[in-house]
Amino acid sequence: MELWQHMGLSGERGLILHHDDLGLTHAANLAYRQLGYPSGSIMAAGAWGPELAGDGGRDLGVHLTLTSEWPAPRLRPLTPGRSLRDGQGFLWPTLEEVWAHATTEDVEDELRAQVEAVRRMGIDITHLDTHMGAVMRPDIAEIYLALAAENRVPAMFPDDLGDSRLPPGWRGALEAIVSASRLPRVRLISAHGVPTAELHDWYLRTLARLGPGVHHLYHHAALPTPEGLALSDGARRRVDLESLQDPPVRRAIAGLRLVTYREVRDALRARCDALGT
Amino acid sequence: MELWQHMGLSGERGLILHHDDLGLTHAANLAYRQLGYPSGSIMAAGAWGPELAGDGGRDLGVHLTLTSEWPAPRLRPLTPGRSLRDGQGFLWPTLEEVWAHATTEDVEDELRAQVEAVRRMGIDITHLDTHMGAVMRPDIAEIYLALAAENRVPAMFPDDLGDSRLPPGWRGALEAIVSASRLPRVRLISAHGVPTAELHDWYLRTLARLGPGVHHLYHHAALPTPEGLALSDGARRRVDLESLQDPPVRRAIAGLRLVTYREVRDALRARCDALGT
Repeated sequence: MELWQHMGLSGERGLILHHDDLGLTHAANLAYRQLGYPSGSIMAAGAWGPELAGDGGRDLGVHLTLTSEWPAPRLRPLTPGRSLRDGQGFLWPTLEEVWAHATTEDVEDELRAQVEAVRRMGIDITHLDTHMGAVMRPDIAEIYLALAAENRVPAMFPDDLGDSRLPPGWRGALEAIVSASRLPRVRLISAHGVPTAELHDWYLRTLARLGPGVHHLYHHAALPTPEGLALSDGARRRVDLESLQDPPVRRAIAGLRLVTYREVRDALRARCDALGT
Repeated sequence: MELWQHMGLSGERGLILHHDDLGLTHAANLAYRQLGYPSGSIMAAGAWGPELAGDGGRDLGVHLTLTSEWPAPRLRPLTPGRSLRDGQGFLWPTLEEVWAHATTEDVEDELRAQVEAVRRMGIDITHLDTHMGAVMRPDIAEIYLALAAENRVPAMFPDDLGDSRLPPGWRGALEAIVSASRLPRVRLISAHGVPTAELHDWYLRTLARLGPGVHHLYHHAALPTPEGLALSDGARRRVDLESLQDPPVRRAIAGLRLVTYREVRDALRARCDALGT
């Protein structure tokens, strides 16, 4: 990755420790502040995003969201497109429903509105990423990368689609789309499938074994308040928080090169300015 | 009031104890369940309304909302009307801004969508009421009463507009609009202006002194969780809850005739059916 070299990250064990689902609950925002790591992204459709406006100098992006998968809280699209909504008017509960129903036009309007909404909260947006990977439908991936380019920010994109559960045919299309962009790609580290009881050990083991490269490790830490625990996966969010508060885990993180999307964004912009684009 | 007589409430000290702002926070919903009183109304734009779907057999209505007055959580309209929104895309923070900017057409679309949204949560809607009294602009009051008629549910309307802080000229228009409807009117009991430190005593005193009539006493009880207390008036919501959990206050309530909007609705419907309308 040419950009990583340019940023002096060659051979480094780089980590973007990324807090997903900010703005969804007050409990997620509280966890973000308690943990003190800078990187995370805001769900524009959540009610609590504006609470983070004062944190915009850290490393906050837009967690582009097309699903609303918990029984409560539930999220509505910001735009009127009917293809984005279930029978109750909320975002679809599953990825499969989004991919089956959402039109390219409705998705483009919605994702654009989400970026704009976070900007209007007063956040200096450093990056885009994707809730549940909904942008991996190839036409949506094109919108995602176009929005990143328009806003001159990086979009999180894994360097290896091999592990993802994508419909056949999409992988080739996605590789073509992303290679046409000049986007730097990250090594995505996911705890998906790790049982909650093993999550703390997974953090320790994963961080200890991290090789060279720029890794994007995402988590969903939230305080175990009644609100935080009311989410169907609230107990797992609590373990994310407790694991990342655990001294051995924090020491492991301190031994890595913590990378922010702000650095990536600024390096990208400097390169584009140098190239006159 | 002819309907109150028909319901056998003449001379009774009737009380609708009404829980406002349900669905706005998990803390409000928890307080509703802890208190155990049946009547309340849901903010359609809040994320937590669907959590109450199983409580729809009690006495739940739609808390029609045109303002979003807390720094967080913030609410967005359900419909695209630009006149409903501030510069960040949220509902206006103040009543004055709603009344100055919102067009009749945008308001009608929005209020209709809010009723429909609560119905689609699986709630058997028993009534409509109004957040911050935003429906008191006369053209909005017409929409409010028309929506109640269409849905064959009562809409909360005070029998005395003398105390309300309405622009000059509106009071006469409102009286004309509501007298043209066959809506029963309630005696509105408001703690507005009562200092938080005196709220508990206000409940005791107000309930003890309640005379004959059907009174609508609204409150905003919410658990003092981090989420509940994150609202700028969270401490007051806690005192609402604690007051209504206090044994002397509960005994005072038990000495009154607790009235539900479900009873009112069913009596209204029976009368309309009898009149063939």
